Amino acid sequence: MKENVSGCPVEEAMRVLGGRWRLLLIWFLLDGPKRFNELRRALPNISQRMLTLDLRALEESRLISRTVFPEVPPRVEYALTEEGQRLRAVVGAFQEFGLWLKQRDV
Amino acid sequence: MKENVSGCPVEEAMRVLGGRWRLLLIWFLLDGPKRFNELRRALPNISQRMLTLDLRALEESRLISRTVFPEVPPRVEYALTEEGQRLRAVVGAFQEFGLWLKQRDV
Repeated sequence: MKENVSGCPVEEAMRVLGGRWRLLLIWFLLDGPKRFNELRRALPNISQRMLTLDLRALEESRLISRTVFPEVPPRVEYALTEEGQRLRAVVGAFQEFGLWLKQRDV
Repeated sequence: MKENVSGCPVEEAMRVLGGRWRLLLIWFLLDGPKRFNELRRALPNISQRMLTLDLRALEESRLISRTVFPEVPPRVEYALTEEGQRLRAVVGAFQEFGLWLKQRDV
């Protein structure tokens, strides 16, 4: 399976989670549902367009849900789905490695 | 720490491992040292330039080493460093999630 990339599970995971922000978004959502503007404030370097596209991609992968509450103005919340909760292990591995990197490079 | 992205360990890990190919390269190297052309064949969609840049970035992060053997023609091998071996857990988490994704989306 390692000879050719197509079909490789690591590539499949990167296809869905790749890009600079998606795992970070998942990380924030592990804390609980968040509104669009909360995510935007949490990631000040991401453009509004990129955030929209990444959220939509994660929604299409059924890893997050988008709920519109009929209020004025309407409130939109993003949350991890039950399937998205599976990403806890992936985010955890990234976080642990990132902590080690930061410690090493102090 | 989650309020602002700078300093967050998940972002730090993404900075070093982000991009479509780096974790895949690490995955191949977990098998053992590989030559440039072996990696290129393993990832037919990556351009030579991108492969060079990604390998160089991983080398600068001290996660892989580059060894030139004085042969004719010179043989260049890439291998995980001891520090790079720490990525086994990260790759493992990606692989497991990717396997689940593929099963789900059959």
